[in-house]
Amino acid sequence: MHQFLDGEWVTEYEATNEDGEFERQTTTFRDRVDPEEATAGRYHLYVSYACPWAHRTLIARRLLGLEDVISVDVVDPYRAADGWQFSPEKDGCTPDTVNGFDYLREAYVAADPNYTGRVTVPVLWDTVEDTIVNNESREILRNLTTVFADLGNGVDLSPEGLRDDIDDALDRIYEPINNGVYRTGFADSQAAYDDAVAELFDALDYWNSVLEDQRYLVGDRLTEADIAMYTTLVRFDEVYHTHFMCNRRLIREYDTLWPYLRDLYTTLGFGETTRMDHIKEHYYTTHPDVSPKRIIPAGPAPDFEAPHDRDELAGEPPV
Amino acid sequence: MHQFLDGEWVTEYEATNEDGEFERQTTTFRDRVDPEEATAGRYHLYVSYACPWAHRTLIARRLLGLEDVISVDVVDPYRAADGWQFSPEKDGCTPDTVNGFDYLREAYVAADPNYTGRVTVPVLWDTVEDTIVNNESREILRNLTTVFADLGNGVDLSPEGLRDDIDDALDRIYEPINNGVYRTGFADSQAAYDDAVAELFDALDYWNSVLEDQRYLVGDRLTEADIAMYTTLVRFDEVYHTHFMCNRRLIREYDTLWPYLRDLYTTLGFGETTRMDHIKEHYYTTHPDVSPKRIIPAGPAPDFEAPHDRDELAGEPPV
Repeated sequence: MHQFLDGEWVTEYEATNEDGEFERQTTTFRDRVDPEEATAGRYHLYVSYACPWAHRTLIARRLLGLEDVISVDVVDPYRAADGWQFSPEKDGCTPDTVNGFDYLREAYVAADPNYTGRVTVPVLWDTVEDTIVNNESREILRNLTTVFADLGNGVDLSPEGLRDDIDDALDRIYEPINNGVYRTGFADSQAAYDDAVAELFDALDYWNSVLEDQRYLVGDRLTEADIAMYTTLVRFDEVYHTHFMCNRRLIREYDTLWPYLRDLYTTLGFGETTRMDHIKEHYYTTHPDVSPKRIIPAGPAPDFEAPHDRDELAGEPPV
Repeated sequence: MHQFLDGEWVTEYEATNEDGEFERQTTTFRDRVDPEEATAGRYHLYVSYACPWAHRTLIARRLLGLEDVISVDVVDPYRAADGWQFSPEKDGCTPDTVNGFDYLREAYVAADPNYTGRVTVPVLWDTVEDTIVNNESREILRNLTTVFADLGNGVDLSPEGLRDDIDDALDRIYEPINNGVYRTGFADSQAAYDDAVAELFDALDYWNSVLEDQRYLVGDRLTEADIAMYTTLVRFDEVYHTHFMCNRRLIREYDTLWPYLRDLYTTLGFGETTRMDHIKEHYYTTHPDVSPKRIIPAGPAPDFEAPHDRDELAGEPPV
């Protein structure tokens, strides 16, 4: 199974506790980039288009105009037994242009020879120190919007005056929504499922209401919080509703969340980084405990580019 | 596995061919009730509330006023390794009041000691000859609407002048819709899935258009064809959309099929025979090849009793 590495690796991405509840393992590399070391060309992102956590970093990179500052490699959306791998022959995928690795796991071992934990994306890689700086999406996002922001186009996605509100929104959406879809889909007991799906839709209902009167999650400014919300919402109808049985409602049945989602989709950096082919292939073929037939379903292909009237609210896209 | 019976039994309900296509096995008992023997109290139905084929017979029995003519027993919605069984302690289930069997399989063996095929519902049982008359839902339905009709309230669900149109409609909806949801959900290859789901939605689109101008499938009369369409449509959003990945659209997103479904649901015999608890338990817990976690999802609980304007079209419910 893991032919190129010795030892016991954590390969269980869907582990549940004795109550059948999915418990996400914490990420391991949690450093902050030193502002003095944040130079163009030094740092690199390993991502998957499929993964909502990695997707956050792609959106921020584009919105902040950091395409020439931070390079990106894209793994195969299908995660096989040996974990995320590079399949440059597949459409939308790249080789590892920095290290030439075949498996992302090798980057983790390069950073920590004793590493045997979960191999996840995104990964922020330091090409000078040859190591992983951070693999926690929220922290990479904050590095991009703060430490790297001066190297880009001047857009500010986490204004200091709003930082507490942004952190509060990020906290509030993480457990019930961003992680909630996984807790719903990976639940191994009816009780764990019932709890997770109820929390998820309570939270969606709440934000649907909040967004009636304001264009973005923390008011009239698009921030990190919207990026974090987007990468879950855009996957919802195509994947989470069916694959993870988050099927109380579709996002396109929400009178506010649905136009909010379309507003973001048609904002620079959002729709263009959304590869639905990678997203669908990943989920439906990589989780045999959930979808054992590995069939990629037909629908529903929501029209993310349909007109919306969100621009009648205060605020406008940052770019 | 089959502790009470010797021999090789067909227990595979989801068998696919070498192309990954689901192929429904044909039913075995195909007799017609002799009109002279169609007397109150002689015939009996074994059904599951979960099963769309069995559900057809429950609707017809009620619409035709045959409740005191043909008795009914209801099996456990969960179909375990030994097949449909009687679990009288479960809500909505009954014992076998005719034969006292624990498993429906015993009725098949009583009818044919050499029987080792699929054990399905509905079953029309003759309490005088102690045998199965028929286990093909479309033929049982026709027996009810013709041979037994005089014993009921006089409603005619297959008028002779419309018989060809009814048979044509039944033929047209069977493969793409009634069986199509199974062909979609049990497909074992992407190509088989893609073909089945495309046929299914083409057919739904077609009937959605036909029903714009007429209240029922063959015109202004409710017939057997509407019963056959109903038992698939009423399960669609709750089960087939998620469990069988028939997720291009929900029925409640169709501008005509959705009010058509609500019209039927609120017609005598339809809603009252629809036990969504049995339906959801059956599908989500009985097909581990499709939903291995056996979790019953939360939604979407469509409001089948919401007002509709179908009574503006010609025709009216038969009772």
